[in-house]
Amino acid sequence: MGIRATVVAVLAAAASLQSQAPAAPTRQALFDDLVIANRILANEGVVDGYGHVSLRNPANANRYFLARAGAPALVTAADIVEYDLDSNPASGSGAGYMERFIHGEIYKARPDVTAVVHCHCLDVIPFAAANVPLRPMYHMGYFIGEGVPVFDIRAAAGITDMLVSTPALGQALARTLGRRPAALMRGHGAVVVADSLHVVVAKAYYLNVNARLQAQAMQLRANGVTSLDPEEAKKAVQTYERSWEFWKSRLPR
Amino acid sequence: MGIRATVVAVLAAAASLQSQAPAAPTRQALFDDLVIANRILANEGVVDGYGHVSLRNPANANRYFLARAGAPALVTAADIVEYDLDSNPASGSGAGYMERFIHGEIYKARPDVTAVVHCHCLDVIPFAAANVPLRPMYHMGYFIGEGVPVFDIRAAAGITDMLVSTPALGQALARTLGRRPAALMRGHGAVVVADSLHVVVAKAYYLNVNARLQAQAMQLRANGVTSLDPEEAKKAVQTYERSWEFWKSRLPR
Amino acid sequence: MGIRATVVAVLAAAASLQSQAPAAPTRQALFDDLVIANRILANEGVVDGYGHVSLRNPANANRYFLARAGAPALVTAADIVEYDLDSNPASGSGAGYMERFIHGEIYKARPDVTAVVHCHCLDVIPFAAANVPLRPMYHMGYFIGEGVPVFDIRAAAGITDMLVSTPALGQALARTLGRRPAALMRGHGAVVVADSLHVVVAKAYYLNVNARLQAQAMQLRANGVTSLDPEEAKKAVQTYERSWEFWKSRLPR
Amino acid sequence: MGIRATVVAVLAAAASLQSQAPAAPTRQALFDDLVIANRILANEGVVDGYGHVSLRNPANANRYFLARAGAPALVTAADIVEYDLDSNPASGSGAGYMERFIHGEIYKARPDVTAVVHCHCLDVIPFAAANVPLRPMYHMGYFIGEGVPVFDIRAAAGITDMLVSTPALGQALARTLGRRPAALMRGHGAVVVADSLHVVVAKAYYLNVNARLQAQAMQLRANGVTSLDPEEAKKAVQTYERSWEFWKSRLPR
Repeated sequence: MGIRATVVAVLAAAASLQSQAPAAPTRQALFDDLVIANRILANEGVVDGYGHVSLRNPANANRYFLARAGAPALVTAADIVEYDLDSNPASGSGAGYMERFIHGEIYKARPDVTAVVHCHCLDVIPFAAANVPLRPMYHMGYFIGEGVPVFDIRAAAGITDMLVSTPALGQALARTLGRRPAALMRGHGAVVVADSLHVVVAKAYYLNVNARLQAQAMQLRANGVTSLDPEEAKKAVQTYERSWEFWKSRLPR
Repeated sequence: MGIRATVVAVLAAAASLQSQAPAAPTRQALFDDLVIANRILANEGVVDGYGHVSLRNPANANRYFLARAGAPALVTAADIVEYDLDSNPASGSGAGYMERFIHGEIYKARPDVTAVVHCHCLDVIPFAAANVPLRPMYHMGYFIGEGVPVFDIRAAAGITDMLVSTPALGQALARTLGRRPAALMRGHGAVVVADSLHVVVAKAYYLNVNARLQAQAMQLRANGVTSLDPEEAKKAVQTYERSWEFWKSRLPR
Repeated sequence: MGIRATVVAVLAAAASLQSQAPAAPTRQALFDDLVIANRILANEGVVDGYGHVSLRNPANANRYFLARAGAPALVTAADIVEYDLDSNPASGSGAGYMERFIHGEIYKARPDVTAVVHCHCLDVIPFAAANVPLRPMYHMGYFIGEGVPVFDIRAAAGITDMLVSTPALGQALARTLGRRPAALMRGHGAVVVADSLHVVVAKAYYLNVNARLQAQAMQLRANGVTSLDPEEAKKAVQTYERSWEFWKSRLPR
Repeated sequence: MGIRATVVAVLAAAASLQSQAPAAPTRQALFDDLVIANRILANEGVVDGYGHVSLRNPANANRYFLARAGAPALVTAADIVEYDLDSNPASGSGAGYMERFIHGEIYKARPDVTAVVHCHCLDVIPFAAANVPLRPMYHMGYFIGEGVPVFDIRAAAGITDMLVSTPALGQALARTLGRRPAALMRGHGAVVVADSLHVVVAKAYYLNVNARLQAQAMQLRANGVTSLDPEEAKKAVQTYERSWEFWKSRLPR
């Protein structure tokens, strides 16, 4: 690990400690919550058989938790693997997602990020294809006001199979993401980041809802659709905790 | 409570007495119905993890019932709080919805109103964003013929977090609503009012359905869509009682 | 009953006898099938809390069966009422649907019709509002090739509450329907007729599906959408029996 | 069977043997998988009461398995019939699908094909009606990059009932399909082929999803929508195995 990565990790660990005033959750509790995140994303249609969600280890900012390769709806605690930030497995077993570098490279570049979702989010793919910037249509999509750039893998690596399956591609995606809460991936889907697992699930969900609202508004009026003012968007921060409880209650037993 | 509010409360109490020829329902029966209203709104997709529905106390027009803060799908009778019209809790416990002033201020301004829904109704948000007035597309959306104004919180209070979280903002929303059955809230959702709990749930539901119909008709023909004649809309009053029975039967056990 | 109605009834009875080579189903079996038709229409979203489906009595062409007023999803065999063609109850009890004249007057005018659906079918209302004729987009919507006229109640009776709640309005609707398989009702919904209960349910269902297909095709290409050739539509007759079995299997227990 | 068909069958048998390094599945296991394929297609909305999926017999490339006529959701292993490539039953009983020639004639013409789906896929019918070519919008629809031609039955046979109900019509469809992974059928639906049962189910599913994405992108921007580069599409091959596991887990018990 280079100096930059070390600094990032130390900063992230410090941030993590600060926010851990209450007793840290056990690893089992973390895994249980990560399993619920997987199942919510599938049950609410944010992911289908593909897509993944990860969580930075609160006890070690140089590690993150991610299920081994499999459909999110079917993930159990036994499937969770711990990876280092180069996306090599540190504990756990099983073939990993080919695109786990999305997670590792973003955790390296963004010490403020605690959780990452990658999805083939259907509502946003048309926006990348049509090159129409997403805008915050209501307070639940407030974070879109920070900007949602589009990652075109062709600009980074020419003709590919579209997958972010190497550290270099993960780094290129992280660069496009910058300090933003989400990035679209042209011809592929999106990546969403946040400082908590519950919030990243909600942002991935509302990124899609907001895209539908924008498409519908643009259908009613091609030009002149009103979105949140940038300052409104900054103020309209959501915790989404009520969404998490709602979605959890809707999971099939 | 000022003179105006007192007058309003007395008038509302009188109206309430008139309509109470049959034995008044017990508080438990009222709470049970309010719980069902919460669950129907969630189950039919009018609200998600956010949104709320309240009922004026039929035994005291200066009070209203509203769940404490939580996802509507998870509300139980134990969560119902009684508020005065300034939205201070009169009985019950737990943190209240930050936006309960929507309810209290409308009850003050509208003695004819017995129930209020606030939702982030997805189908109507694009209409506020595109500044396209809703029109009554079929008899089930007849009340839209009375007009559905758009509340822009920026006109009332400049840059905000979009939430109607103070008495002043609630009053501004009530002024925009005027005598109408509903108002859209730009970048946020809608508020719907009625003279019964069952009807307010149905009007919130059909406000959305009607918006979808209008968007689809406008897609087929940009100009020249026919909606109900204003006089037709006045005549096509619905009780929606059959909808309530249907929706109730569809609730998960 | 006038001479014309008598003639119609006799012809219908004759047609009914011809098609009854196998042992006639018992009244209980007929009622059970009519209950299933109600529940399928609700479960597949053709009707919501409102709408109705009726069946001509195969043993007496001057009578038809229709549930008493209530949500279709909740209809049981005990709710079925037998009506004469003037829509007066002949047996059974309970308040009738205000719009039962839709059924009675169509049975009078159309001896070939054995079953009638009235729905607030959401996908077709925009077509009536936009005055865009429905066209048969695929073989499952073949019957649309016979034409689907639009009934505008205002042309028949001026300003109304939009409901077909009198014999005269039912007759006006039947005149607009003519020999066609369905008619849209402006600002209201649709009526669909067929020579069997299973087929009328399927035609109501596919009338909606076909409308969605047409709207989507018109969105892709404003002019020049290809629908079935009129002669193709005539040949592509469906029994839809496989749909009935599928929908029946999907009913909640 | 003519010489050409014999050659095709021998080649297919050879290909089949090569890919059968592991012990061949029992006939019961094949039937169980084919039943699951039927049920997934119905449960995920790719087929409704109509449509079918077949599998070439891995032990005899001149035979294929297809359920007898019935709704896909209700198919059981007892319903599977074995057909020769002229679509005559070789074992099993019951009336066959009138359009089984779609399957037989494609197996004859395409020794590389192991499984075939025919559906009235709603999302693609508008594309054939509007004559808008499908394009690969994301990696999950990569195969669309090979081209999806439109079969117009009128060009092959004039006015018909739209059904591919003869060997000659099946051959005409197979000619239009050529070496492609799928073909739309104007005013009818689509046919999808693949070298495995799991993949053909997934390609039928994603053909529809991709069509929705393309329609939505074209709504945002009438011209200039970006789809996968042809070389990207070639590289982005999917096994979709994770989708199969996900869809299987969602089947009603």
